[in-house]
Amino acid sequence: MKVTPVIAIHGGAGTLLRQAMNAEMEARYIAALTDILSAGQRVLADGGSALDAVTEAVRLLEDCPLFNAGHGAVFTAAGTHELDASVMDGATLEAGAISCVTRVRNPVLAARRVLDVSDHVMFTAAGAEAFAAAQGLELVDPSYFHTDARYQQWQKARGTSRTMLDHDAMTKFSFDNGPNDPIDPDKKFGTVGAVALDANGHLAAATSTGGITNKQAGRVGDAPMIGAGCYANDATCAVSTTGTGEMFMRMLAAYDVSAQMEYRGVSLEEASNDVVMNKLPRIEGRGGLIAVDAKGNVVLPFNTEGMYRGFARVGAAPVTAIYR
Amino acid sequence: MKVTPVIAIHGGAGTLLRQAMNAEMEARYIAALTDILSAGQRVLADGGSALDAVTEAVRLLEDCPLFNAGHGAVFTAAGTHELDASVMDGATLEAGAISCVTRVRNPVLAARRVLDVSDHVMFTAAGAEAFAAAQGLELVDPSYFHTDARYQQWQKARGTSRTMLDHDAMTKFSFDNGPNDPIDPDKKFGTVGAVALDANGHLAAATSTGGITNKQAGRVGDAPMIGAGCYANDATCAVSTTGTGEMFMRMLAAYDVSAQMEYRGVSLEEASNDVVMNKLPRIEGRGGLIAVDAKGNVVLPFNTEGMYRGFARVGAAPVTAIYR
Repeated sequence: MKVTPVIAIHGGAGTLLRQAMNAEMEARYIAALTDILSAGQRVLADGGSALDAVTEAVRLLEDCPLFNAGHGAVFTAAGTHELDASVMDGATLEAGAISCVTRVRNPVLAARRVLDVSDHVMFTAAGAEAFAAAQGLELVDPSYFHTDARYQQWQKARGTSRTMLDHDAMTKFSFDNGPNDPIDPDKKFGTVGAVALDANGHLAAATSTGGITNKQAGRVGDAPMIGAGCYANDATCAVSTTGTGEMFMRMLAAYDVSAQMEYRGVSLEEASNDVVMNKLPRIEGRGGLIAVDAKGNVVLPFNTEGMYRGFARVGAAPVTAIYR
Repeated sequence: MKVTPVIAIHGGAGTLLRQAMNAEMEARYIAALTDILSAGQRVLADGGSALDAVTEAVRLLEDCPLFNAGHGAVFTAAGTHELDASVMDGATLEAGAISCVTRVRNPVLAARRVLDVSDHVMFTAAGAEAFAAAQGLELVDPSYFHTDARYQQWQKARGTSRTMLDHDAMTKFSFDNGPNDPIDPDKKFGTVGAVALDANGHLAAATSTGGITNKQAGRVGDAPMIGAGCYANDATCAVSTTGTGEMFMRMLAAYDVSAQMEYRGVSLEEASNDVVMNKLPRIEGRGGLIAVDAKGNVVLPFNTEGMYRGFARVGAAPVTAIYR
C-alpha cells in the first residue's frame, strides 16, 4: 500500500484569553505554523525520513520565539532557562532525550544525536551539555533564550506566586505564556512537538520545551520522557503531547495511545480520545496531543479551549488551527 | 476480600560467574535480602502502607554496600557517583523521582518527598539536590558512596574500555558488578527495587540505582523513569525493573505489564512474562522485574541467569533466591 507522507505539529495548548484574541497575533501564529509545516512537508516530499521531518520541524519551532522551546523558552524561578527534548524512531524503537540543558541552542538536535550515536537514551544537565559539545552542536550564551515577552511573564508569575514561594515553593503550578498570546497566558501549557509518517511507512515523534514559567530549578516534565511526552512505533502510531506534564508522566500518555491500539485493537482516534478526554481528566490532566498512524490518519485532540496545531500531507496545503 | 500483605524486592540481575559462586558470598546476599524483606514485612504487619514498605525496603537496599544504589553505588567515568530513584503510589497514581544526584544519602527518600510534597514528578541534578536539602534530607560527602569493591570494578572497566572511550565514549555499555558477586561482574545490571501490597489493597513500587560502571556523566537510565523502571496502579499491579535500562525505557517495561493486564485482560504472570521473555529480548533487553497485583500474586521473572530477589508475605517466612 502506497502511503501519502504527512506531518503534524503543535505549539502548546491552553485556555482562550478573549481580550488577547486580536487578528494580528492570530495571523502571526498561523503563519508560523504554516511555514514550519511546509518545511517538514518538503523533507517528506524529498523522500526524507519521518525522523528527519520531525527533527527539522521541532528545530524550527525551537527557533521561533512565539513558542515555549529554544529561543522564546520560559524563565525558571532562578531567572534561567532549562530545556528538555526527546525524539523517537518508530522503525527501530530507538530514542534520544536530554533534560535540563541551559546552553544548547536546539535541544531537539541534541536528543537526535543521542538517538543517532549513543547507546544511551537520556543525558541530563551538565553531562547533557558535555555530550552536545562533544557532538559539535551549537552552544549559545544563555541570553540567547531571553525574550522580553517571556521575561514579562516571569515577572508576573513571580509577583503572583510570592506567597507560594514563601511557604512551599513546589506545590503549585505556574504557567508559561506570552502576553499577547491568543491562548490565555495564565492557563497555557507550552511544549512544541511534531509527528510524521514517511513514504516508507515509518513513523517518528519529537517534543521540546522550556517547561513552565517560574518552575523550580531542576524540574523535569514529560517532554523528554519517552512514553509520556513522546512515543513512536511503526506498528501503532507516533505521538507528541502538550499539557500539565506531571499528569502526562503519571498516565504515560503518549505510550498509552499506542498500548490501547496494540492491546485493545482500537483505532488511533479512539485511543487518543480516551487518553485526552477520559484518562487524563481523571487526574486533572489538561492539554492535548498530536498523533499519526501508519495509514496516515492524523488526530489532534485536546481538552483545553485551544491548541496551536496543524498538519500537512505531501501534495496538499497545510491545515492549521488554534481554537476548537 | 481480605488480602495478605506482601512485599517483594530485587537487587539486580545478570549472568552467573561460576568461579565466584562461593558459599560465603551467597550467604551474605541471602542474609541481606532476608533482613530487608523482614523489615518491609514488619511495616506491612504493623498496618503500614505499601508506599511506606517499599520506601523502607529500598532505603535499606541503598544503605547495603552489596547492591548498586546509595552506599555501594558504581563509579561514573569521571570517578563520581550519580544516583537515580523513583517511587509510585498505586492508590493515587502519584509519583516522585530524582535523577543525577551526587550528595543525597538516600535517593529513594528524596523521590518520596517529591511524591509527598511537590506537584512535580521529577527533579534532576543540582535542582534535585536543592530540593532534597530544602526538605531536610541527609546530604553526605560524595566519599560516602565509595566502596573499594566498586572502585576496583571501575578500574577494570576503565582498562577494558579505553579504546571505546577514545573513539566514541557513549556507544558501549559497561556493567556494574562486585568482584566477588555470585553474578558475573561483567554482565550484571544493578538496580534495587521493591513492590508491595498492603492490608488495604493498595499497591506501590520503588526503584533506585547508581547506574552502570564507567557511565558518562549525566546518563539517566530507567530507574527514575515512571513507566520504565517503576510503576504502580491499584487497578492492575506494581512493578520494579532491573536490566539494560535503555531497552526498558524504549519498551516502557514497567507500565507495559499494567497496560497488558488492563487492555488485554491477561494475568500478572502472563503480562510480566511477555515483557521479560518476549518484548525485551526483541531489542536485546536483558534483565528482569518484580511485580505484585491486587490479589497478592507475586512474580519475579528474569531473562538472565540470575537475579537477586525475594518476597515475604505477612505471617510467613521470607523466600529468597539468586539463580534460576
